[in-house]
Amino acid sequence: MQGLMQFHPLMISSAIEFAALYHGDTEVVSRRVEGDIHRSNYATINRRAKQVAQALDALGLAQSARVGTLAWNGYRHFELYYGVSGSGRVLHTLNPRLHPEQLAWIVNHAEDEVLAFDMSFLPLVKAVASKLPTVKHFIALCDAAQLPADSGIPNLQSYEAWLAPNGGDYTWPVFDENLAAGLCYTSGTTGHPKGVLYSHRSSMLHALASAATDVIGICSRDTVLPVVPMFHVNAWGLPYLMPMVGAKVVFPGAALDGKSIYELFESEGVTMSAGVPTVWQMLLAYMDANQLKLSTMKRTVIGGSACPPAMLDAFRDRYGVTVNHAWGMTEMSPLGTFGTLKGTQLHASADAQRATLLKQGRAVFGVDMKIVDGEGHELPRDGVAAGDLMVRGSWIIEQYYRGEGGSILDADGYFSTGDVATLDADGFMQITDRSKDVIKSGGEWISSIDVENIAMAHPAVAMAACIGVRHPKWDERPMLVVVKKPNVEVSAQDILHFYEGKIAKWQIPDAVQFVDAIPLGATGKMQKTKLREMFKEFTLSA
Amino acid sequence: MQGLMQFHPLMISSAIEFAALYHGDTEVVSRRVEGDIHRSNYATINRRAKQVAQALDALGLAQSARVGTLAWNGYRHFELYYGVSGSGRVLHTLNPRLHPEQLAWIVNHAEDEVLAFDMSFLPLVKAVASKLPTVKHFIALCDAAQLPADSGIPNLQSYEAWLAPNGGDYTWPVFDENLAAGLCYTSGTTGHPKGVLYSHRSSMLHALASAATDVIGICSRDTVLPVVPMFHVNAWGLPYLMPMVGAKVVFPGAALDGKSIYELFESEGVTMSAGVPTVWQMLLAYMDANQLKLSTMKRTVIGGSACPPAMLDAFRDRYGVTVNHAWGMTEMSPLGTFGTLKGTQLHASADAQRATLLKQGRAVFGVDMKIVDGEGHELPRDGVAAGDLMVRGSWIIEQYYRGEGGSILDADGYFSTGDVATLDADGFMQITDRSKDVIKSGGEWISSIDVENIAMAHPAVAMAACIGVRHPKWDERPMLVVVKKPNVEVSAQDILHFYEGKIAKWQIPDAVQFVDAIPLGATGKMQKTKLREMFKEFTLSA
Repeated sequence: MQGLMQFHPLMISSAIEFAALYHGDTEVVSRRVEGDIHRSNYATINRRAKQVAQALDALGLAQSARVGTLAWNGYRHFELYYGVSGSGRVLHTLNPRLHPEQLAWIVNHAEDEVLAFDMSFLPLVKAVASKLPTVKHFIALCDAAQLPADSGIPNLQSYEAWLAPNGGDYTWPVFDENLAAGLCYTSGTTGHPKGVLYSHRSSMLHALASAATDVIGICSRDTVLPVVPMFHVNAWGLPYLMPMVGAKVVFPGAALDGKSIYELFESEGVTMSAGVPTVWQMLLAYMDANQLKLSTMKRTVIGGSACPPAMLDAFRDRYGVTVNHAWGMTEMSPLGTFGTLKGTQLHASADAQRATLLKQGRAVFGVDMKIVDGEGHELPRDGVAAGDLMVRGSWIIEQYYRGEGGSILDADGYFSTGDVATLDADGFMQITDRSKDVIKSGGEWISSIDVENIAMAHPAVAMAACIGVRHPKWDERPMLVVVKKPNVEVSAQDILHFYEGKIAKWQIPDAVQFVDAIPLGATGKMQKTKLREMFKEFTLSA
Repeated sequence: MQGLMQFHPLMISSAIEFAALYHGDTEVVSRRVEGDIHRSNYATINRRAKQVAQALDALGLAQSARVGTLAWNGYRHFELYYGVSGSGRVLHTLNPRLHPEQLAWIVNHAEDEVLAFDMSFLPLVKAVASKLPTVKHFIALCDAAQLPADSGIPNLQSYEAWLAPNGGDYTWPVFDENLAAGLCYTSGTTGHPKGVLYSHRSSMLHALASAATDVIGICSRDTVLPVVPMFHVNAWGLPYLMPMVGAKVVFPGAALDGKSIYELFESEGVTMSAGVPTVWQMLLAYMDANQLKLSTMKRTVIGGSACPPAMLDAFRDRYGVTVNHAWGMTEMSPLGTFGTLKGTQLHASADAQRATLLKQGRAVFGVDMKIVDGEGHELPRDGVAAGDLMVRGSWIIEQYYRGEGGSILDADGYFSTGDVATLDADGFMQITDRSKDVIKSGGEWISSIDVENIAMAHPAVAMAACIGVRHPKWDERPMLVVVKKPNVEVSAQDILHFYEGKIAKWQIPDAVQFVDAIPLGATGKMQKTKLREMFKEFTLSA
């Protein structure tokens, strides 16, 4: 027997429509690529998103047609999020930090028909435009006046001129909630990138689950600055969540340096932010150097890679900001876990609480999680056993775009994350390593992350990566690659001494190499593949 | 093009399974009808709910079979919530305060096959058992030892003996999310009660939406005491929400007096509660009389009827407790609006904030809301125009059980709530009256609620109801029915003087009648129909 409640499909457009109606005058502030500050609000964003929908209709774009974006976090990108998905097309966010060849490959694989881009990416688009046969319309996110006379890009239009003929008198359509809404490619380390195709249902369930107080938990009294880019797994879902709860929005544009972020935090009264550790490192360094304080910030969400313990301490002790660890991936929309203390942990010691908060968090309601051994047998949730982390849920991938990679789930429907992790009795997950980064020394596994975290606590170390290098006896042994802080002196021996008593002797690296910089990927993560390539001839003696 | 994310139906069982896995040792505390305190936890509740599922299987109950409950808020009722719905049957919560004839009518209309009841309702069940031909199994919520030797009820079993043969080794089934999960009858003032049939999808979307920080917003660090009964629109959804977020639960059983509630608040460290104003009136009176304070309570949700301004002030000023107004109805699962300040209102004056918080709140994400005039035309959202309040959304009724009442939605799919309300520019809704309680004086409408709120602020008034009585010139005029506080003297004239300057002269009641008690309905609301019956011969002179 069926229930007798109304059926309404879960639609992404409902978030912006709700915000426009109930929080119409709540601000959406953007630092533009031009450098100036632009002020809008939810009522205006919704009207302009509807103009985008009408403009897409005018282009004759079919349902599910892909619209690519190459843009920073800003109001026009926000409008495209809703105009494209809300009208039934697929928003395909492109990572501008990718190599042009790879970018072209992705646009062609997705068969994008429109490409909208920030003016700062004009040279990049110019370089690849001729290699994008499916793209019929190029839209520059600027005023007509800012459009270069001869861009060399065929049919280039300014976004504002493209919107202008449309009045925004448009009703968001209602359709199957399982229809595709967004597309993100994962920057695979091997082979071609693979696309993850989100639906309206998956994105809205993800947003509803992340709205919970113990998860992202923002509300209409928050001012949120998403540092995490909108081209990086939909900025962790914030573009859907912020209007759903009516939070004030501050978009940082292209300026992610410590000074620019700090100024926006203070001038706009930001209460909550989210981003990868490298950005927070820059912010902390800027505030330390200039003896600044934060006056409205309460909470920051750290994801993308593990939060170094020293960063959690600095935010808490010096700035009164709570750090919540989150973990996820493109294939998970992205949220899998979130780190907030449970009621039963409130009476634990400060040290125990800190240790808990340094883990990656516990599963968000809606995500099933297990760790398995090499044969796929489930391992105990004891905080000790480490195994391959597997996930299942309504916002987790079923298969890649166009079926690339074939069947990717186990017999119980779980997706393998590629992370090695422990799960403790309280449900907190801790990543011990990426499956491919684990160092296998004489049959024993060494977590490269553990080794790095200790190095990062050394006062002279700015950044550290641990990779495995060949060893005649142990097959592989850990080596530490270090970037020193400016104007300090430290020897390899100093750093190796620093490990004593902090880790088992056999887990201490065999060597330390100093470099000027560690290569970072398009999402700010250390690229260990490049480091391994760099040190592939390096061999330790027995 | 369909998205390529996993599809998992939204299942009620997922909430308790999640709680058992991630918050297994979080307590579920109950004051039993026997009077003692019982302690359980989510792991145990989940195991015993699975035993219920197995016991229902053993009875041979088909999918969607109805299981009636006549029970207070307690752990066994909680187990039935999951055991019944989780296994694919329909939980039919019955209101024990109904007249036995009406109760029997509802059980027969629903065709309940099992009836589970608290021992305090044994006399009630005894009285109606022979009139319930569809009920094949009577289960008393007690130990085998507590079962009376000769109850007179055929095949009566104790709950514990019924569960005992089942080990709880059971996997929650997964099925169509639109399948019926729960059934509640509305206590209609005219005609027979009508059933509202919830689905797994509607209940889970309702729970996800109410988990937001700006809505119920409880989390794993909260201890929640639901005063609102589990037979009253699923205790406003708390039995689903509490495990979903891992909150500690305190069930008050049958003891809803001020002393009993206060003692549980303090002994269990309750941080959040929810109930109707009459219960809070009793609690405040008890605390005032005994000069008590609340040491852990932070927030209480008031719904069911409007919160008197004096109650909001008392909680805030004397006890440091925030009152959030909520509004909904059985046909809405029940949540429609929730009253929390928006960021844009944080700088308003204290008076303006108080006025906002005394409204019924703003629409929860997922609920569409409009007010219309007599011809169904939408009225402005200006905080002044009052019209019939209409709602639409995924947890709002499509039709009543068995199609009673026929088609109940307007052309746009909105359900008429029967409330008259205003909507202001910030989205806050304020009920000015029930459609049927509005007093129509010479073509002008007078809100009975406004008249009552003023009377309730008078120091000598314990309870007040305003009804319309016949008037030769104005058709209808307001009359106030008052219950005095004990040991105080007040005259009708005193009370009428109290209105001066607080309300337009023509809105002041024409008469005041003192009574010993105002009849309350099964959910604690004043029964104005009974008052109108009582005063039907009363006529005012011109």
